[in-house]
Amino acid sequence: MKFNKELNHSASHVMALAILQLWPDTKLGFGPPTAEGFYYDFKFSQPLLESDLAKIEKQMHKIVNNNYIMHKMPDDYVYDTSQQPYKQELIDEFKSQNKNITFYSIYDPNKNKELFVDLCAGGHIEKISKIKHFKVLSLAGSYWRGDFNNEQLTRIYATAWETKEDLDNYLMLLQERKERDHRKLGKEMELFMFDQLSGQGFPIWLEDGMKIRNRIMKEVLALDYKYNFTEVATPIVGEKKLYEISGHWQHYQEDMFKPIICDNENLILRPMTCPHHVLIYKSKRRSYRELPIRLSEQSPLFRYEKSGALTGLERVRSMLLTEGHLFVRKDQIISEFEHCYKMISEALEMFNIQVDYVSLSLRDPDNKEKFYNDENMWLKAEEDLRKVLKKLKIKYVEKIGEAAFYGPKIDIQIKTVLGHEITMSTLQLDFLLPKKFNLEFYNSQNSIENPIMIHRGLIGTYERFLSILLEQTKGNLPFWLAPKQVIIIPVAEEHKAFADEIYTQLKDNHFYVEVDDRNERISKKIREAQIKKTKIQIVIGDDEIATNELSLRFYGQKDIIKIKKIELIDYLIKLRNEKK
Amino acid sequence: MKFNKELNHSASHVMALAILQLWPDTKLGFGPPTAEGFYYDFKFSQPLLESDLAKIEKQMHKIVNNNYIMHKMPDDYVYDTSQQPYKQELIDEFKSQNKNITFYSIYDPNKNKELFVDLCAGGHIEKISKIKHFKVLSLAGSYWRGDFNNEQLTRIYATAWETKEDLDNYLMLLQERKERDHRKLGKEMELFMFDQLSGQGFPIWLEDGMKIRNRIMKEVLALDYKYNFTEVATPIVGEKKLYEISGHWQHYQEDMFKPIICDNENLILRPMTCPHHVLIYKSKRRSYRELPIRLSEQSPLFRYEKSGALTGLERVRSMLLTEGHLFVRKDQIISEFEHCYKMISEALEMFNIQVDYVSLSLRDPDNKEKFYNDENMWLKAEEDLRKVLKKLKIKYVEKIGEAAFYGPKIDIQIKTVLGHEITMSTLQLDFLLPKKFNLEFYNSQNSIENPIMIHRGLIGTYERFLSILLEQTKGNLPFWLAPKQVIIIPVAEEHKAFADEIYTQLKDNHFYVEVDDRNERISKKIREAQIKKTKIQIVIGDDEIATNELSLRFYGQKDIIKIKKIELIDYLIKLRNEKK
Repeated sequence: MKFNKELNHSASHVMALAILQLWPDTKLGFGPPTAEGFYYDFKFSQPLLESDLAKIEKQMHKIVNNNYIMHKMPDDYVYDTSQQPYKQELIDEFKSQNKNITFYSIYDPNKNKELFVDLCAGGHIEKISKIKHFKVLSLAGSYWRGDFNNEQLTRIYATAWETKEDLDNYLMLLQERKERDHRKLGKEMELFMFDQLSGQGFPIWLEDGMKIRNRIMKEVLALDYKYNFTEVATPIVGEKKLYEISGHWQHYQEDMFKPIICDNENLILRPMTCPHHVLIYKSKRRSYRELPIRLSEQSPLFRYEKSGALTGLERVRSMLLTEGHLFVRKDQIISEFEHCYKMISEALEMFNIQVDYVSLSLRDPDNKEKFYNDENMWLKAEEDLRKVLKKLKIKYVEKIGEAAFYGPKIDIQIKTVLGHEITMSTLQLDFLLPKKFNLEFYNSQNSIENPIMIHRGLIGTYERFLSILLEQTKGNLPFWLAPKQVIIIPVAEEHKAFADEIYTQLKDNHFYVEVDDRNERISKKIREAQIKKTKIQIVIGDDEIATNELSLRFYGQKDIIKIKKIELIDYLIKLRNEKK
Repeated sequence: MKFNKELNHSASHVMALAILQLWPDTKLGFGPPTAEGFYYDFKFSQPLLESDLAKIEKQMHKIVNNNYIMHKMPDDYVYDTSQQPYKQELIDEFKSQNKNITFYSIYDPNKNKELFVDLCAGGHIEKISKIKHFKVLSLAGSYWRGDFNNEQLTRIYATAWETKEDLDNYLMLLQERKERDHRKLGKEMELFMFDQLSGQGFPIWLEDGMKIRNRIMKEVLALDYKYNFTEVATPIVGEKKLYEISGHWQHYQEDMFKPIICDNENLILRPMTCPHHVLIYKSKRRSYRELPIRLSEQSPLFRYEKSGALTGLERVRSMLLTEGHLFVRKDQIISEFEHCYKMISEALEMFNIQVDYVSLSLRDPDNKEKFYNDENMWLKAEEDLRKVLKKLKIKYVEKIGEAAFYGPKIDIQIKTVLGHEITMSTLQLDFLLPKKFNLEFYNSQNSIENPIMIHRGLIGTYERFLSILLEQTKGNLPFWLAPKQVIIIPVAEEHKAFADEIYTQLKDNHFYVEVDDRNERISKKIREAQIKKTKIQIVIGDDEIATNELSLRFYGQKDIIKIKKIELIDYLIKLRNEKK
């Protein structure tokens, strides 16, 4: 699937011509190629409907079925903009800036006629007839020059490919993306919602979303317990002064919410928890024997994202982070990094997350501004992290200049379904925060030393993690994580008692189970259970009661598993414990 | 123990006289009797020390050992205020307001001399010698007239009683209160802390506090599961408009935090969750078959308390509430109240909470202003709640006029150790909120009806609940709730492996266990474990290893339980499951 930018650029001119043929008094905006297709912005004199898209596509086919040529107009060409005010505005602007102005035209050699001339910097194919395989995809609102103070336009998205196969593949990919879109899945499965009245970008976790979140959290807390983290819960606000000391106020303010004035306090919804854990460390005299101190929290955090950037659970203003902070001695850095790395590996394996690669982010020694200035510290710390990775036999990529200001870090990178690279887990050394807050401990000689902090990110926020799980599984979560594990469908009234008996058994064993005894057709019930992605359906009729044998129909699978009623619980418990 | 107000009032004059005899240039403020003693505010020319309190008490004893008389001065008495600016201020004020001004004096009949005249409205005993049994208790900072813009004074607290027995009893009570003070216990046991930098009144839950909170929450969630509540998590903020619709903004604003301006939103830290659960109800079309819908949440809430009112975990600005809201049909009110009442009973029994009494709060039919105006609604609702209480055979107190504006309620009242009456659990009918938000469902005839809401409070907030548990148990929590369940103390290095083996076994079974292998004396380790209220101490020495028999020393008990090592886990699991 090779994307051809020139092809798509020319196709956008074809689309503009098609539009003008269909609706001659349309005003033209911009029409560039994009990474996967092209778009064109139009001002229509009548509202454009979804159903018009097919009409446009048809018209474009008519155009490309000719031997038209795309060519550059002579330098002395004078463009008539009397019908095109947006183009006029651009031409005026280019002239005032002494910019080069060029025009490209779709030319009919048979009639020796310019069919459609457009202001354009070029980058085209020559033969219009090469544009064979394209699709007009969708329309959306836009603004002239992207500024919402300007007039509103209609943007039409489309895509063009060199072969039919490429086009088909691309359309399949689009379909795939749509099916994996966690916003769509979240809505269908009723996992979460948003409401303007409780804050844009502040997610509401619905019943089934909470079930998934709780299952994940149970495992996270079990890992915290296993790896000897101690759970705390700290306030969701920080006094402004806290963030002045930590430096967040100076460097991170634009991502923070505005303070709430309360008496003489300025309380800020916290963007991170590190300073709060520092307060706990600082609350008493610490001895070297107490270290490492490993604090963990399921931390509510808040970031001011622009409302336009909010995207489902992926970009939110309120989130819950699986967070850890370690306070360690210098001689504990290697062992604690190893400790935490193992923990992260265990978590990612449990949730079946495919790691793309591991990176070791180092400072750029030549860039004195960007990195905290302590030569020995950096040499020692970077060496320590290399030792850990070597010891654990981990392949990694060194990234010079990608360290945090306060120290080097190890990141676990994954690729999302949409091809975005994101950091799933992270381990960051931090020499600076302990100094800013004057953290201390008494060493074995009873003299004072500074501890070092390690920031441990496990699986990120529950919001982002759920969105990734949904996209990776198309909502078909593994049995142990699924919020709808079993549905029991009695065929008729007389089968209900038997169904209820199984229900009670399952509920007592903490399975997510429902009985669908509505007065509806069985086929409708089965279809609805499918839409909700219920993992197992069990229909109860005369046969089941007579034989005490149940038929388990699994979501997305054709095979049916037959099982004795008495063996059901053990079978399901095994399935749940397997975490597959 | 009968409190004598006149006795205490006169004693406060005696204390002022004693102070002037000891430090003649002291300025006098107010000196009233209180509910359990008296105090006097002074401006000293030198700092007063805790150690001076005994000196003052001694001087008072000298004074009351005489046959002095307390008497009112003649109306024409002129008080010399040249040394007493605060008294002068009061006299000037009273004069300007044409108030009656009177003076009382301690009089020495032997010398026919006024020893100490004070501005005073009266209410005294006659014979000073009756003030025999008193105690100067403590000192604290105060402000002249209680206004922090005024000069700072020193307040001395004391108490006087008619008999020695009464005084002793009262001092014992004070000691008892001190021992039960959850703030003191919380500090000693390191359960929670506060830090100005993360918000006054915003508690920080430390490791051991979280252990208790988690144990409680586990049971609360298990009850939610058993009683078919579905857990959700909603945003900790609400848009101002949400509270305008619910009416909280109009009626409750002074207890709410100020809004955070965010783009065109006014986000407010939520004071309650009801409107958020309403948003979930409202998010889709509801059928009568779906009701009752029972939503539960462990809700972070925020209330703006005056900083002076903040008291440990009892009065906080940030709290976590065990919350439930039900959306029901009219015909479900009785069964749902019964359902929830059983749930509450089960919770209170599990946590061994002594119920003082149950109240049924009704409207006052004569007070049209205070109660939502719907005669039929009130008649039906009050009758319904009476039926529930009768059916469950619960004795209750009817409180006319104590209902909420929006409906009648049932409260479970308890008495705290300090004698305060508080509402532990509550069930409130609410006809109004569903109307304000236009909540609807389709009934069996497919026409629209309004659901009714029930607000269910289970054990209140985790903050208040912990403070009550601590006060009721003096921090000696039952084994299953204790954050320090077992400590293992190896006598010497060679006993450590054996201790570690037990530790691992216990940790694998999720007990809160520690090994104390520090280089300290055994007696010191035992004493420290006592202070932390560790429930069970197990010392490991040669004998234990030789016999495989362990000695379990329980906190606060003299008896030691001997148990085979192999039986330890089963014994402890049983102890934990008993919840005693």
